[in-house]
Amino acid sequence: MSNLIDFSLYLITDRTQLTAGYSLFSAVEAALQGGVKAVQLREKDLPAAELLPLARQLRDLTRSYAARLLINDRIDLALAVQADGVHLGGHSLPADVARRLVGPELLIGISTHSCAEISRAAAQGADFVTFGPVYATPSKAAFGAPQGLQALAKACHGSTLPVFALGGMTPERTTEVMRSGAAGIALISAILASPDPRSAASAFNQQEG
Amino acid sequence: MSNLIDFSLYLITDRTQLTAGYSLFSAVEAALQGGVKAVQLREKDLPAAELLPLARQLRDLTRSYAARLLINDRIDLALAVQADGVHLGGHSLPADVARRLVGPELLIGISTHSCAEISRAAAQGADFVTFGPVYATPSKAAFGAPQGLQALAKACHGSTLPVFALGGMTPERTTEVMRSGAAGIALISAILASPDPRSAASAFNQQEG
Repeated sequence: MSNLIDFSLYLITDRTQLTAGYSLFSAVEAALQGGVKAVQLREKDLPAAELLPLARQLRDLTRSYAARLLINDRIDLALAVQADGVHLGGHSLPADVARRLVGPELLIGISTHSCAEISRAAAQGADFVTFGPVYATPSKAAFGAPQGLQALAKACHGSTLPVFALGGMTPERTTEVMRSGAAGIALISAILASPDPRSAASAFNQQEG
Repeated sequence: MSNLIDFSLYLITDRTQLTAGYSLFSAVEAALQGGVKAVQLREKDLPAAELLPLARQLRDLTRSYAARLLINDRIDLALAVQADGVHLGGHSLPADVARRLVGPELLIGISTHSCAEISRAAAQGADFVTFGPVYATPSKAAFGAPQGLQALAKACHGSTLPVFALGGMTPERTTEVMRSGAAGIALISAILASPDPRSAASAFNQQEG
């Protein structure tokens, strides 16, 4: 595997947003059936001991769908389950430290909220970034007001890395987001909180195609 | 470095217990001057980004005193700062997973509270365990009632690994603890909460010697 970003729909997990009747596993599987090609395991309230079995299950599952698995924050867990990469936020180890631990092959994604953070991620050896929140979204309320399409376009045009738009993504917004220069879309609730994650994922894929 | 347990006084950090006037750095340095030969960085409320500079400072500091540095829970952080080992609890990745990540040279310590947990730690490739709480202590209130000296003796005699007694350690209790078969003493507040961490550490060393 090289540092190729071969996906445009990046699903971030949050089991607290699942619709009744779905487990994290079954919801992610439905999303993969709908065309998701990259999944980030991000259950911030769980300790490593509880993340490990989830990560192993998702590793097997994503592999069987030829999809990528990234692990949020815990580089050790990513290495332990042979994930395809790690995703790091502002409270994580910095990308340059992560790169020394994971080697050249694993993907490193970074959560960013400004052009300055994107530049830093690039300088530290990241492979891609998420940028947001683009639109208003409950998932990302902690990151403040939505930045809007113009800020997304500015971020994308100033970036040497692929930028995944995050926050308030819907199939209808996909066209304008991609026209702004995004390499893809990152999302949680639009798929995971859907009563039909497979169709939800599929709707995004159709818009992108 | 081999998996040699060459220390008998194992200081676990908790910066919330420091006496006024001490930083974590200055308190640990005083403890090292008093004869502590192994330090575990354990600040459970801090994310990796904030642990990294602390771990780097303690790495330099412990090295300058020829002392060991272990990192609690975060195997990635331990590898990043070239610590001598990791210390894992019940919420951490299991020891066998950790061993594959850190290789044969780094120390793996495990927090245990029963003979069954000690046996499991040994089977999974740990190098040593802490066992406790032996005496009553506010630091370890979450682990329930003190287990007492008899339980410590039973744990030590049934263990193939060195056992560090944890919980309510004082210099006066050192003799009976070591007579119970402990390989050493693990402690937080008896040194870090002392108005004179250097003398506190030194008092333990004199008892052991």
